[in-house]
Amino acid sequence: MASTSPEPSTAAAVAEADCSVQIRRLEATDHEKGFVALLSQLSACPDLTASEFAACFADLAALGDDHVILVAEDPASPERRILATGCLFVERKFLRGGGKVGHVEDVVVDAAARGRGLGIRVVRRLVEIAKEAGCYKVILDCTPELRAYYAKCGFVEKGVQMAIYF
Amino acid sequence: MASTSPEPSTAAAVAEADCSVQIRRLEATDHEKGFVALLSQLSACPDLTASEFAACFADLAALGDDHVILVAEDPASPERRILATGCLFVERKFLRGGGKVGHVEDVVVDAAARGRGLGIRVVRRLVEIAKEAGCYKVILDCTPELRAYYAKCGFVEKGVQMAIYF
Repeated sequence: MASTSPEPSTAAAVAEADCSVQIRRLEATDHEKGFVALLSQLSACPDLTASEFAACFADLAALGDDHVILVAEDPASPERRILATGCLFVERKFLRGGGKVGHVEDVVVDAAARGRGLGIRVVRRLVEIAKEAGCYKVILDCTPELRAYYAKCGFVEKGVQMAIYF
Repeated sequence: MASTSPEPSTAAAVAEADCSVQIRRLEATDHEKGFVALLSQLSACPDLTASEFAACFADLAALGDDHVILVAEDPASPERRILATGCLFVERKFLRGGGKVGHVEDVVVDAAARGRGLGIRVVRRLVEIAKEAGCYKVILDCTPELRAYYAKCGFVEKGVQMAIYF
Protein backbone atom coordinates (compact mmCIF):
# COMPACT_ATOMS: atom_id res chain seq x y z
CA MET A 1 0.00 0.00 0.00
CA ALA A 2 1.41 3.34 -1.00
CA SER A 3 1.61 6.38 1.19
CA THR A 4 2.59 9.77 -0.07
CA SER A 5 3.08 11.19 3.38
CA PRO A 6 6.58 12.67 3.44
CA GLU A 7 6.84 12.32 7.19
CA PRO A 8 4.90 9.33 8.45
CA SER A 9 4.26 9.83 12.12
CA THR A 10 3.92 6.23 13.27
CA ALA A 11 5.89 3.04 12.82
CA ALA A 12 2.95 1.54 10.93
CA ALA A 13 2.93 4.49 8.57
CA VAL A 14 6.67 4.08 7.96
CA ALA A 15 6.20 0.42 7.12
CA GLU A 16 3.31 1.28 4.85
CA ALA A 17 5.31 3.98 3.10
CA ASP A 18 8.29 1.68 2.57
CA CYS A 19 6.16 -0.99 0.90
CA SER A 20 5.87 1.47 -1.94
CA VAL A 21 9.61 2.00 -2.28
CA GLN A 22 10.86 0.10 -5.30
CA ILE A 23 14.35 -1.25 -5.79
CA ARG A 24 15.23 -1.12 -9.48
CA ARG A 25 18.19 -0.66 -11.79
CA LEU A 26 19.54 2.83 -12.45
CA GLU A 27 17.97 4.48 -15.46
CA ALA A 28 19.32 7.21 -17.73
CA THR A 29 16.69 9.63 -16.42
CA ASP A 30 17.82 9.24 -12.81
CA HIS A 31 20.18 12.17 -13.24
CA GLU A 32 17.14 14.38 -12.79
CA LYS A 33 16.13 12.49 -9.65
CA GLY A 34 19.14 13.47 -7.60
CA PHE A 35 21.30 10.37 -8.14
CA VAL A 36 24.59 12.29 -8.26
CA ALA A 37 23.63 14.47 -5.30
CA LEU A 38 22.88 11.30 -3.34
CA LEU A 39 26.34 9.89 -4.14
CA SER A 40 27.88 13.13 -2.88
CA GLN A 41 26.64 12.15 0.59
CA LEU A 42 29.11 9.23 0.39
CA SER A 43 32.22 10.75 -1.17
CA ALA A 44 33.44 13.60 -3.32
CA CYS A 45 31.07 13.64 -6.23
CA PRO A 46 30.90 16.83 -8.26
CA ASP A 47 27.71 17.27 -10.22
CA LEU A 48 27.74 15.97 -13.76
CA THR A 49 26.19 17.73 -16.72
CA ALA A 50 23.44 15.84 -18.49
CA SER A 51 25.87 14.81 -21.24
CA GLU A 52 28.57 13.77 -18.76
CA PHE A 53 26.01 11.67 -16.90
CA ALA A 54 24.79 10.12 -20.14
CA ALA A 55 28.37 9.25 -21.16
CA CYS A 56 29.14 7.67 -17.79
CA PHE A 57 25.81 5.81 -17.86
CA ALA A 58 26.57 4.45 -21.33
CA ASP A 59 30.08 3.33 -20.33
CA LEU A 60 28.70 1.38 -17.39
CA ALA A 61 25.65 0.06 -19.22
CA ALA A 62 28.03 -1.41 -21.80
CA LEU A 63 29.27 -3.75 -19.09
CA GLY A 64 25.82 -5.36 -19.01
CA ASP A 65 25.11 -7.61 -16.06
CA ASP A 66 28.76 -7.33 -14.94
CA HIS A 67 27.92 -3.88 -13.56
CA VAL A 68 24.60 -3.32 -11.82
CA ILE A 69 23.58 -0.12 -10.06
CA LEU A 70 20.39 -0.37 -8.02
CA VAL A 71 18.38 2.56 -6.74
CA ALA A 72 15.48 2.89 -4.31
CA GLU A 73 12.65 5.15 -5.33
CA ASP A 74 9.15 5.76 -4.06
CA PRO A 75 6.99 6.10 -7.17
CA ALA A 76 4.17 7.42 -4.99
CA SER A 77 6.28 10.32 -3.74
CA PRO A 78 5.69 13.58 -5.59
CA GLU A 79 9.43 14.39 -5.49
CA ARG A 80 10.47 11.09 -7.12
CA ARG A 81 13.96 11.44 -5.61
CA ILE A 82 16.41 8.53 -5.47
CA LEU A 83 16.47 7.51 -1.80
CA ALA A 84 19.26 4.93 -1.78
CA THR A 85 21.70 3.27 -4.12
CA GLY A 86 24.32 0.54 -4.28
CA CYS A 87 26.45 -1.02 -6.98
CA LEU A 88 27.66 -4.52 -7.84
CA PHE A 89 30.37 -5.29 -10.32
CA VAL A 90 31.48 -8.73 -11.26
CA GLU A 91 35.17 -9.55 -11.51
CA ARG A 92 36.30 -12.57 -13.53
CA LYS A 93 39.28 -14.58 -12.40
CA PHE A 94 41.45 -17.53 -13.34
CA LEU A 95 41.04 -18.72 -9.75
CA ARG A 96 38.28 -21.20 -8.93
CA GLY A 97 38.12 -22.55 -12.45
CA GLY A 98 37.48 -19.17 -14.06
CA GLY A 99 35.40 -17.98 -11.11
CA LYS A 100 33.54 -14.76 -10.54
CA VAL A 101 33.57 -12.43 -7.56
CA GLY A 102 30.94 -9.79 -6.85
CA HIS A 103 32.14 -6.45 -5.49
CA VAL A 104 29.61 -4.25 -3.71
CA GLU A 105 30.48 -0.56 -3.92
CA ASP A 106 29.01 2.87 -3.37
CA VAL A 107 26.13 2.10 -1.00
CA VAL A 108 24.46 5.22 0.33
CA VAL A 109 21.05 6.14 1.73
CA ASP A 110 19.76 9.69 1.64
CA ALA A 111 20.17 11.30 5.07
CA ALA A 112 16.43 11.96 5.25
CA ALA A 113 15.54 8.32 4.48
CA ARG A 114 17.86 6.48 6.87
CA GLY A 115 16.57 4.01 9.44
CA ARG A 116 14.00 2.55 7.09
CA GLY A 117 16.06 -0.41 5.93
CA LEU A 118 16.37 0.82 2.35
CA GLY A 119 20.15 0.32 2.21
CA ILE A 120 19.80 -3.21 3.51
CA ARG A 121 17.16 -3.96 0.88
CA VAL A 122 19.52 -2.66 -1.82
CA VAL A 123 22.50 -4.65 -0.52
CA ARG A 124 20.52 -7.88 -0.12
CA ARG A 125 19.29 -7.58 -3.68
CA LEU A 126 22.86 -6.98 -4.91
CA VAL A 127 23.96 -10.13 -3.05
CA GLU A 128 21.15 -12.10 -4.73
CA ILE A 129 22.22 -10.79 -8.12
CA ALA A 130 25.84 -11.82 -7.43
CA LYS A 131 24.68 -15.31 -6.46
CA GLU A 132 22.45 -15.59 -9.53
CA ALA A 133 25.41 -14.50 -11.68
CA GLY A 134 27.39 -17.46 -10.39
CA CYS A 135 29.82 -15.58 -8.16
CA TYR A 136 31.49 -17.80 -5.58
CA LYS A 137 31.66 -14.87 -3.14
CA VAL A 138 30.65 -11.26 -2.78
CA ILE A 139 32.86 -8.76 -0.97
CA LEU A 140 32.86 -5.13 0.11
CA ASP A 141 35.01 -2.70 2.05
CA CYS A 142 33.64 -0.48 4.79
CA THR A 143 34.59 1.42 7.91
CA PRO A 144 34.75 -0.63 11.13
CA GLU A 145 31.57 1.12 12.37
CA LEU A 146 29.56 -0.49 9.56
CA ARG A 147 30.45 -4.11 10.40
CA ALA A 148 27.10 -4.66 12.18
CA TYR A 149 25.18 -3.03 9.35
CA TYR A 150 26.60 -5.39 6.75
CA ALA A 151 26.31 -8.35 9.13
CA LYS A 152 22.53 -7.86 8.82
CA CYS A 153 22.98 -8.67 5.13
CA GLY A 154 24.99 -11.82 5.89
CA PHE A 155 28.53 -10.44 5.58
CA VAL A 156 31.32 -11.48 7.93
CA GLU A 157 34.64 -9.74 8.45
CA LYS A 158 37.33 -11.26 6.30
CA GLY A 159 40.39 -9.01 6.19
CA VAL A 160 41.67 -5.47 5.99
CA GLN A 161 41.39 -2.98 3.18
CA MET A 162 44.55 -1.13 2.14
CA ALA A 163 44.63 1.92 -0.13
CA ILE A 164 46.83 4.41 -1.93
CA TYR A 165 45.28 7.75 -2.91
CA PHE A 166 46.92 9.55 -5.82
CA MET B 1 73.39 -9.89 -15.50
CA ALA B 2 71.60 -13.19 -15.64
CA SER B 3 72.22 -16.11 -13.36
CA THR B 4 70.76 -19.51 -13.95
CA SER B 5 71.68 -20.75 -10.49
CA PRO B 6 68.50 -22.14 -8.97
CA GLU B 7 69.75 -21.55 -5.46
CA PRO B 8 72.02 -18.52 -5.25
CA SER B 9 74.08 -18.89 -2.12
CA THR B 10 74.86 -15.25 -1.38
CA ALA B 11 72.89 -12.04 -1.18
CA ALA B 12 74.88 -10.69 -4.12
CA ALA B 13 73.97 -13.71 -6.18
CA VAL B 14 70.29 -13.23 -5.31
CA ALA B 15 70.43 -9.62 -6.44
CA GLU B 16 72.20 -10.64 -9.62
CA ALA B 17 69.65 -13.35 -10.35
CA ASP B 18 66.71 -11.01 -9.78
CA CYS B 19 68.03 -8.44 -12.25
CA SER B 20 67.14 -10.96 -14.89
CA VAL B 21 63.57 -11.46 -13.68
CA GLN B 22 61.21 -9.62 -15.97
CA ILE B 23 57.81 -8.25 -15.02
CA ARG B 24 55.51 -8.44 -18.02
CA ARG B 25 51.85 -8.93 -18.92
CA LEU B 26 50.36 -12.41 -18.89
CA GLU B 27 50.56 -14.16 -22.26
CA ALA B 28 48.42 -16.91 -23.70
CA THR B 29 51.36 -19.31 -23.54
CA ASP B 30 51.80 -18.86 -19.79
CA HIS B 31 49.47 -21.79 -19.16
CA GLU B 32 52.45 -24.01 -19.94
CA LYS B 33 54.65 -22.05 -17.52
CA GLY B 34 52.73 -22.98 -14.41
CA PHE B 35 50.55 -19.89 -14.08
CA VAL B 36 47.49 -21.79 -12.80
CA ALA B 37 49.59 -23.91 -10.45
CA LEU B 38 51.05 -20.70 -9.04
CA LEU B 39 47.57 -19.30 -8.37
CA SER B 40 46.71 -22.51 -6.52
CA GLN B 41 49.25 -21.45 -3.90
CA LEU B 42 46.91 -18.54 -3.14
CA SER B 43 43.43 -20.06 -3.23
CA ALA B 44 41.44 -22.95 -4.63
CA CYS B 45 42.42 -23.06 -8.28
CA PRO B 46 41.76 -26.29 -10.11
CA ASP B 47 43.87 -26.79 -13.19
CA LEU B 48 42.38 -25.55 -16.45
CA THR B 49 42.60 -27.37 -19.74
CA ALA B 50 44.37 -25.53 -22.53
CA SER B 51 41.03 -24.56 -24.05
CA GLU B 52 39.57 -23.46 -20.70
CA PHE B 53 42.66 -21.33 -20.11
CA ALA B 54 42.44 -19.85 -23.59
CA ALA B 55 38.76 -18.99 -23.09
CA CYS B 56 39.44 -17.33 -19.74
CA PHE B 57 42.44 -15.49 -21.19
CA ALA B 58 40.32 -14.20 -24.09
CA ASP B 59 37.52 -13.02 -21.75
CA LEU B 60 39.97 -11.04 -19.68
CA ALA B 61 42.01 -9.76 -22.62
CA ALA B 62 38.78 -8.34 -24.05
CA LEU B 63 38.75 -5.94 -21.09
CA GLY B 64 41.92 -4.36 -22.46
CA ASP B 65 43.77 -2.04 -20.11
CA ASP B 66 40.91 -2.28 -17.61
CA HIS B 67 42.24 -5.71 -16.61
CA VAL B 68 45.98 -6.24 -16.36
CA ILE B 69 47.65 -9.43 -15.13
CA LEU B 70 51.39 -9.13 -14.57
CA VAL B 71 53.75 -12.05 -14.16
CA ALA B 72 57.39 -12.35 -13.12
CA GLU B 73 59.57 -14.67 -15.17
CA ASP B 74 63.30 -15.26 -15.41
CA PRO B 75 64.00 -15.69 -19.14
CA ALA B 76 67.47 -17.00 -18.26
CA SER B 77 66.04 -19.84 -16.19
CA PRO B 78 65.82 -23.16 -18.06
CA GLU B 79 62.47 -23.93 -16.42
CA ARG B 80 60.84 -20.65 -17.54
CA ARG B 81 58.28 -20.93 -14.74
CA ILE B 82 56.10 -18.01 -13.68
CA LEU B 83 57.55 -16.91 -10.33
CA ALA B 84 54.99 -14.31 -9.23
CA THR B 85 51.80 -12.69 -10.39
CA GLY B 86 49.34 -9.95 -9.53
CA CYS B 87 46.27 -8.44 -11.15
CA LEU B 88 44.81 -4.96 -11.51
CA PHE B 89 41.33 -4.23 -12.69
CA VAL B 90 39.90 -0.79 -13.15
CA GLU B 91 36.44 0.04 -11.88
CA ARG B 92 34.58 3.02 -13.32
CA LYS B 93 32.30 5.08 -11.11
CA PHE B 94 29.92 8.02 -11.14
CA LEU B 95 31.76 9.28 -8.06
CA ARG B 96 34.58 11.77 -8.49
CA GLY B 97 33.27 13.03 -11.79
CA GLY B 98 33.23 9.61 -13.45
CA GLY B 99 36.34 8.49 -11.60
CA LYS B 100 38.29 5.26 -11.78
CA VAL B 101 39.50 2.98 -8.99
CA GLY B 102 42.20 0.36 -9.37
CA HIS B 103 41.68 -2.95 -7.58
CA VAL B 104 44.73 -5.13 -6.95
CA GLU B 105 43.86 -8.82 -6.71
CA ASP B 106 45.45 -12.25 -6.73
CA VAL B 107 49.03 -11.44 -5.77
CA VAL B 108 51.11 -14.54 -5.17
CA VAL B 109 54.79 -15.45 -5.27
CA ASP B 110 55.95 -19.01 -5.80
CA ALA B 111 56.98 -20.54 -2.46
CA ALA B 112 60.46 -21.22 -3.82
CA ALA B 113 60.93 -17.62 -4.96
CA ARG B 114 59.81 -15.71 -1.88
CA GLY B 115 62.04 -13.20 -0.10
CA ARG B 116 63.42 -11.80 -3.34
CA GLY B 117 61.05 -8.84 -3.62
CA LEU B 118 59.30 -10.14 -6.73
CA GLY B 119 55.80 -9.64 -5.31
CA ILE B 120 56.63 -6.08 -4.36
CA ARG B 121 57.95 -5.39 -7.85
CA VAL B 122 54.71 -6.74 -9.31
CA VAL B 123 52.51 -4.71 -6.96
CA ARG B 124 54.47 -1.49 -7.46
CA ARG B 125 54.13 -1.84 -11.21
CA LEU B 126 50.38 -2.46 -10.85
CA VAL B 127 50.12 0.72 -8.77
CA GLU B 128 52.00 2.65 -11.49
CA ILE B 129 49.62 1.28 -14.12
CA ALA B 130 46.62 2.34 -12.02
CA LYS B 131 48.05 5.84 -11.70
CA GLU B 132 48.84 6.04 -15.41
CA ALA B 133 45.26 4.93 -16.15
CA GLY B 134 43.96 7.93 -14.21
CA CYS B 135 42.68 6.10 -11.14
CA TYR B 136 42.18 8.38 -8.15
CA LYS B 137 43.05 5.52 -5.80
CA VAL B 138 44.13 1.90 -5.81
CA ILE B 139 42.86 -0.55 -3.19
CA LEU B 140 43.32 -4.16 -2.14
CA ASP B 141 42.17 -6.55 0.56
CA CYS B 142 44.54 -8.72 2.55
CA THR B 143 44.96 -10.54 5.82
CA PRO B 144 46.13 -8.43 8.78
CA GLU B 145 49.54 -10.17 8.64
CA LEU B 146 50.21 -8.63 5.21
CA ARG B 147 49.74 -5.00 6.27
CA ALA B 148 53.51 -4.41 6.52
CA TYR B 149 54.13 -6.11 3.17
CA TYR B 150 51.76 -3.79 1.34
CA ALA B 151 52.97 -0.80 3.33
CA LYS B 152 56.29 -1.30 1.51
CA CYS B 153 54.37 -0.57 -1.69
CA GLY B 154 52.84 2.60 -0.23
CA PHE B 155 49.49 1.24 0.95
CA VAL B 156 47.90 2.34 4.22
CA GLU B 157 45.10 0.62 6.09
CA LYS B 158 41.76 2.12 5.21
CA GLY B 159 38.92 -0.12 6.40
CA VAL B 160 37.69 -3.66 6.83
CA GLN B 161 36.82 -6.22 4.19
CA MET B 162 33.51 -8.06 4.58
CA ALA B 163 32.52 -11.16 2.60
CA ILE B 164 29.79 -13.69 1.91
CA TYR B 165 30.82 -17.04 0.45
CA PHE B 166 28.14 -18.90 -1.49
